[in-house]
Amino acid sequence: MTKNLTPVTVVGLGDMGRALAAAFLDAGHPTTVWNRTPHRADDLVRRGATRAATAADAVRASRVVVVCLLDYPTVREVLAPAGGELAGRTVVNLTNGTPAQAAEAGDWVRGLGADYLDGGIMAIPPMIGQPGALILYSGSKGAYEAERELLERLGGSRFLGTDPGAAALHDLALLAGMYGLFGGFLHAVAMVDGPARGFTDELLVPWLTAMTGVLPELADQIDAGKYTAQSANLAMQAVSLANITTATVDRGVDPALLAPLRALADRRVSEGSGGDDISTLVEGLRVGAR
Amino acid sequence: MTKNLTPVTVVGLGDMGRALAAAFLDAGHPTTVWNRTPHRADDLVRRGATRAATAADAVRASRVVVVCLLDYPTVREVLAPAGGELAGRTVVNLTNGTPAQAAEAGDWVRGLGADYLDGGIMAIPPMIGQPGALILYSGSKGAYEAERELLERLGGSRFLGTDPGAAALHDLALLAGMYGLFGGFLHAVAMVDGPARGFTDELLVPWLTAMTGVLPELADQIDAGKYTAQSANLAMQAVSLANITTATVDRGVDPALLAPLRALADRRVSEGSGGDDISTLVEGLRVGAR
Repeated sequence: MTKNLTPVTVVGLGDMGRALAAAFLDAGHPTTVWNRTPHRADDLVRRGATRAATAADAVRASRVVVVCLLDYPTVREVLAPAGGELAGRTVVNLTNGTPAQAAEAGDWVRGLGADYLDGGIMAIPPMIGQPGALILYSGSKGAYEAERELLERLGGSRFLGTDPGAAALHDLALLAGMYGLFGGFLHAVAMVDGPARGFTDELLVPWLTAMTGVLPELADQIDAGKYTAQSANLAMQAVSLANITTATVDRGVDPALLAPLRALADRRVSEGSGGDDISTLVEGLRVGAR
Repeated sequence: MTKNLTPVTVVGLGDMGRALAAAFLDAGHPTTVWNRTPHRADDLVRRGATRAATAADAVRASRVVVVCLLDYPTVREVLAPAGGELAGRTVVNLTNGTPAQAAEAGDWVRGLGADYLDGGIMAIPPMIGQPGALILYSGSKGAYEAERELLERLGGSRFLGTDPGAAALHDLALLAGMYGLFGGFLHAVAMVDGPARGFTDELLVPWLTAMTGVLPELADQIDAGKYTAQSANLAMQAVSLANITTATVDRGVDPALLAPLRALADRRVSEGSGGDDISTLVEGLRVGAR
C-alpha cells in the first residue's frame, strides 16, 4: 500500500522536524531523514524512516524535500553542499524567518533549478498531523497543487500567493496578534494577583472570546478608512487606559506592556480623533513607505 | 403587575446611563431618572420614566440608586447635595474608575448611612439588558443579595467580594486583556496591509481563538510558579519577536506596540529563563510591593 505514496525527505530534526517526519511516516509515505547530529533520527528510523548519510543523499532520495531548520542562514549552509542535486525537485521550506529571507531563499533555490514553496507553521509540534494544525504556503503554485495531498498529511494548508514571502508575512502577523493577546493576558493576571486559573476560566476567556467577535467590525472600519465610533470612542478609551495604568501601578505591577498603545491613543486624541473607534490607531502605526 | 417591582433611580444619563434606565423600564420597574442636562431624560420619560427635579428628589424616589457618571469626582459632586437623603438606601455605583476610587467612594457612602455596591460594566450600551452583558459587583454582600433580581435586569452579574475595589480591579484587568488583544490585532492588520476583513475572518480570528485556548495552561503554570516550556520556549519566542520586528519595520509599520514584550522576553532570556514558557514573563511584571 505504501509504495504508491510520494516519497518525501525531511531535513532538520528538531522538535518540529521530527513531528513533520513522524506525520509522513504515520501516513505511510516513504520518508528519508537527515540531521547534522545523526542521533536525532534514531526514533524515526525505528518507526521506519531511512537515515541518509549526507544532506546530498537525503535530497537525492525524494522529489519533495521538506526543510525545517533553526534559521535561514542554516538552510543555506545545509543545502549548499547538496545544491547540485536540487534541480527538478521541490524544496518546501518550513523554517521560521522573515518575508525578505523567504524571498532570498526562493531566488537561490530557483536558481538551482528547483521549485520553491515557503511555509509558515501555525502550530506547535504535538499538533502536527492533527486537523487543528494550519500551515500557510506561498511561492510556486504548481508545486503547491502537485504536492498538496502530501503536505496535508501535516495539517490544514492555505496557499497565499506566488510571492514567496507571503507565508512568512502572514505567519509573523498572526504571531504579532498572538503576542498582543498573550501580553494582555500577562498584564491582566499580574494585576489581579489571585489564582490565575479561576480568573482566566471564569472571566478572562469568556471576555476575550466576546471581544474577538468585535474584530471583524474593526476590520471593516479599517478597510473603509472610516473609524467613527458606534459606542465607546477613543477619548473614553484613553480614560480607561489611564485608569488601567493607575490601578496597575497601585498594584505594584509594571504597566509597560500597554504603554505604547496608551501613548498612541493619547496622541490620536490630541490630533482630533477622539470621536473615532479604536480602529483609528492603525493609521498611527503606518509610519512610512516601504 | 409593575407595582410589585422594586422602584429604582438612575442618576447620570449618558449613553450607558440611558441604556441602564431603559432596561429597568423594559422590565417594568418604576424608574426615576436625573441628569444635570435634563433633556437627556426626554426619551426615557416618553417611555414611562419619572423625571426628578433635583438629585435629592431622585435619591428620595427609590431605595436603590444606580449611579453612572463620567468619573468619580463627578459622583461626589452630584451626590453631595443629596447626601442627607442617602441613609438607609443602597448606592450602586457603575461609574468607571480605579479600585482606590471605589474604596474611597464606599467609605464616603457608608459614612452617610447607605449600603455601597460598586460595579464594573463589561459591555457596551447596546448590550445592556441582553444575556451577553456582564456586570461585576463588589462591596456590600447584603445589598447584592437583596437587589440581585433588580440588577440582573441589566445583564449577568458576578459578586467578587466585599472589598469595594474588587469590581473595578477585575474590570480594569479584563480591559487590559482586551487592549492587548486589540493592540495585537492592529499590529497584525497593519503588517498585512491587504484587505483587513478577509485576513481577520479567515486567519486571525481562528488563530486567536485557538491561542485563547492556551491561556488556561499558562494560568496553571503561573499558579504553580513553574514555567517549564512544553514546546516553544522563550529563547525561540524571542527569535520570533525579533523576526516580527524586522518584518514590521520592512513593511513601513511601527513595531512599538510589541516592543515592551520583546524587551521583557530578551531580558528574561538573558537572566537565564530561556527554557521557560512565555508565562514566565509575569515575574518580570511584578515590580514592587503595594
